[in-house]
Amino acid sequence: MDFLQTVRGMRDLLPDEARVLRFIEKKARHIAELYGYEEVITPVIEHYELLAAKIGEENRKRMYVFEDLGGRKVALRPEFTASIARLVATKMASSPKPIRLFSIGSLYRYDEPQLGRYREFWQANYELIGSNKPEADAEVISLTVDFLNCVGVRNHTLKINHIGILRGILEREGVSEDGQNALMQRLDKKDLSGAMIIAEEHGVSKGGLETLKDLFSIRGNDREEVTRRIGETLKDYPEAKEALRNLDEIIDLVRDGGVDAKFYFEASFARGLEYYTGIIFEVYVPELDIAVGGGGRYDNLIGIFGGGDVPAVGVALGVDRLMLAMKRQGVDAPKEQRIKALIIPVNEENISNAFKISVMLRRYNIPAEVEVMRRGLSRALSDASRRNITHVIIVGSKEISEGKVVLKNMERGIQEAIKIEDLPNKIGS
Amino acid sequence: MDFLQTVRGMRDLLPDEARVLRFIEKKARHIAELYGYEEVITPVIEHYELLAAKIGEENRKRMYVFEDLGGRKVALRPEFTASIARLVATKMASSPKPIRLFSIGSLYRYDEPQLGRYREFWQANYELIGSNKPEADAEVISLTVDFLNCVGVRNHTLKINHIGILRGILEREGVSEDGQNALMQRLDKKDLSGAMIIAEEHGVSKGGLETLKDLFSIRGNDREEVTRRIGETLKDYPEAKEALRNLDEIIDLVRDGGVDAKFYFEASFARGLEYYTGIIFEVYVPELDIAVGGGGRYDNLIGIFGGGDVPAVGVALGVDRLMLAMKRQGVDAPKEQRIKALIIPVNEENISNAFKISVMLRRYNIPAEVEVMRRGLSRALSDASRRNITHVIIVGSKEISEGKVVLKNMERGIQEAIKIEDLPNKIGS
Repeated sequence: MDFLQTVRGMRDLLPDEARVLRFIEKKARHIAELYGYEEVITPVIEHYELLAAKIGEENRKRMYVFEDLGGRKVALRPEFTASIARLVATKMASSPKPIRLFSIGSLYRYDEPQLGRYREFWQANYELIGSNKPEADAEVISLTVDFLNCVGVRNHTLKINHIGILRGILEREGVSEDGQNALMQRLDKKDLSGAMIIAEEHGVSKGGLETLKDLFSIRGNDREEVTRRIGETLKDYPEAKEALRNLDEIIDLVRDGGVDAKFYFEASFARGLEYYTGIIFEVYVPELDIAVGGGGRYDNLIGIFGGGDVPAVGVALGVDRLMLAMKRQGVDAPKEQRIKALIIPVNEENISNAFKISVMLRRYNIPAEVEVMRRGLSRALSDASRRNITHVIIVGSKEISEGKVVLKNMERGIQEAIKIEDLPNKIGS
Repeated sequence: MDFLQTVRGMRDLLPDEARVLRFIEKKARHIAELYGYEEVITPVIEHYELLAAKIGEENRKRMYVFEDLGGRKVALRPEFTASIARLVATKMASSPKPIRLFSIGSLYRYDEPQLGRYREFWQANYELIGSNKPEADAEVISLTVDFLNCVGVRNHTLKINHIGILRGILEREGVSEDGQNALMQRLDKKDLSGAMIIAEEHGVSKGGLETLKDLFSIRGNDREEVTRRIGETLKDYPEAKEALRNLDEIIDLVRDGGVDAKFYFEASFARGLEYYTGIIFEVYVPELDIAVGGGGRYDNLIGIFGGGDVPAVGVALGVDRLMLAMKRQGVDAPKEQRIKALIIPVNEENISNAFKISVMLRRYNIPAEVEVMRRGLSRALSDASRRNITHVIIVGSKEISEGKVVLKNMERGIQEAIKIEDLPNKIGS
C-alpha cells in the first residue's frame, strides 16, 4: 500500500526529532523576545500571485500550486517574506515603524529531496520593517549569530555580499530588471559563465564585462583586502560604490558591537529570491554544504504590494537544517528528565482506584500514567524500567483497605507502603 | 490587487492573537507531558488515499486535493488521526504498547467560512494506542477536561455517545458498513428523518426501525435515566447492550476518579469521521454552537493501514475555537510584562555605541532594541512610551566620554547618568 509511506520529500518527526525541533523553536522565540520581535502567524495557503511575485524563477517553478474548490489559484508558501510584506502592506499599513515581526512554521518547495532538503521544511523568520539604516541590517546579523549560538551550533560563517553592487553596475550598463534577475539566477546556481553570457546578451559594455569578470573573482574572509579589491573594480560605478560603502558600514557596526560573526565575502554571491536590494547573506557550518539560514535587505517589496515606501531587512533560519547541523556537531537538545509516575492496579478491582490516584497526582503537577494494558505486575514493571518512569505506584486491595499503596522508586530500587495522600509529597521531593 | 487579501477562509493572526494561540499550544504541551504523551510531527501533505480512507463522505468532499509536480494525488491533512495511525502502523509497528502520541499544528478543510470555522485551523491532538480497556477511554476524557481547565475555558460539557450501540443494532439488522456510514453521516447533520429513511432502504426490520426511533429520542444529562432508557430499547441487540455497558464503565471511571466532567448523553449523536468504533464525544461551551473539541475510540483504523489489531482512542481540541471560547468567556492569555530596553543614540556618532550596548544587554538576557529610525530624541521617547518599553537608554557624546549613558525608567519617570557596565544590574533589578 503505497499510500502508507509519507509522500516523497515529506517526513515524520518521531519524538526524539520532534523534541529537537521544539527546542529550536523555543530558542527562536527566546531570540524574538530578546530582540523585540512580535510573533505573527500567516496562512500556509496564499494566492499564487502573491507568492510568485518576487520569489525568483527557480523557486517559482518549485512551488506547490493548485486550484482550490472555489477555483482560486493558490499555492503553499515557499517562504515567509511575501506573506509578511503583504501583512505589513495591508493590515499593518498604519502601524508606526519600525515593526519587528517573527514567524515560525512549515514551508513547501518541490525540490529534489536530499540530506537536509525536504519538500516540507521549517523556518524561523525575522523581519525588521521600516528602517533603511545600517543599524537595522546589523541588528539582523547580530540576531542571526545570537540564534545560532543559542541553539549551540558552532563554527558558523556568514557568506555576505551586497546586491546593490551588482545591480549598480548592471543598472548603469542599461540592463533591464528582468535581465538583472536572470543574471542573478545564474549566479545563484554558481554558473558564472552563464551570468557573463547574460550580461553580454543584455548589452553590457566591454568595460562592464571586464568589471564583472574581475568582480566575480573576488572572495575571501580578509575584509580589508576584499573591500579594497571590490572598490577598485567599481571606479566607474558610483551606485555600486555606494552599495559597497553601505556594506562596509554594516560590517563596522557588527564588528564594533562585539558580535561574534565570522564573515566570508563573495562578490559573485546572489540569492534565488528576487526581492533583495541591499545586503544578502547565508549562514554555513563546516559540516553541511547547504546554508542553514539566509537573509537580506528588500526595500521595494512592501511597496510593490501597495504598502508605500517601506524598507525592510530580514533573515530566515532553516530549522531542519539546524537540526542536522546540531546532529553533525554532536549538539543535543537537553532532555528534561522529569518525574513520571506509572500506576499499576494489581487486579481489575483496583482499576478505578489507580485511575483516581492518577487524577490526583496530576493535580499536583506530577506526570502520571495508568497501566492501561492490564498487564501483570511483573510485565508492567519491566515495561516501566524500559521507559523513563521514575516512580511506580502499585495499587493492591490489601494496601487500599488501609488507605495505602506501594510506592517504588525506580531509580533507587526501593519500595514502601505509604498513605495515598502522602504520594505527591513523596514523589515530588 | 486581490492577491493582497488572505485567501478566502484563511487568516492572519496578529501578535495579540498569535500570543493566545501559543499560550494554548503551551498548555497543550503541558497536558501532554502530564499524561505522558510524546510529540510527533507528521507532514501537512499526505497521500490522498490515506486521508480519504475513513474520513467520511462529507469531510472527503472538503479536502484540499491536488496533484504534486510528480503527478502524485496528494491532499492537505484535514485531521491528525489518519497520519498518526499510518505512523503507528509503519514506523512504530514494533514499539511496545501503549503508545501515547501528541501532535499540534494546522489542518485544512474547505468548509464554508463562519465564526470559528476557518479553512486553515489548528488542533492539539492526543492518541492513546494499544489498549481497548475503559481506563484508556477514561484517560482521554480526563485529559480533555484537564486541558480545558488548564487554558481557563469554563462551563464545558461533553456530549457523549457510544457508536457501538448504533452499529450493534444496524449490524444485527444486516445493514452493510456503507449503509451504516451513510446513516451516521445523516445523524452527523442532525437529519434524523434522513437517517430513518436510510435505515429503511437498507432493510432494517419494523422492530428495528421502532428501536432506532425510540433510541434517537433519548438525550439528556441525567445519566441514570438515559442509560436505563437506552438499555430498555436494546433488549434484542446484545452487541448494542455490550456497547452501552462499555460506555457505563467509562463514565464510572471518570466519575469515581473525581474528574470534573459534565456529560450530556445523546443517543442520536454521531460524528462525520467514519473510523469510530466505541465512545465518541464532543466538547461544547455555552458561548459557542460549534464543538471546541471531539474524539472517540477507533479500534480498526490502524489495522486497515496494515498495523494489525491495535485498538486506539483519541481526542482533538480545536485551538482556534478555544481561542474564540476564551474570548467569549473573557479569559485572556497572560501577558508576560517583561523588561524591555530601548537604546537611543542622540546623534549619528553614537549609533555604534548604542548598538554595542544592545549587544551587551542581550548577553545579560535583557530584551533590547536600538532606535533604528534615527528619529530625534523626543519622537523616539514618545514612541517608547506608546509601546511597552520599560527602560530607555540615551547615548550621548558627553556621557559616553565618561563611560556613561542616561538611563530613564519609563515606569517611574526618573532618569540618571550611570556607568555602562552598571546597566544590566540596574535594569535587571
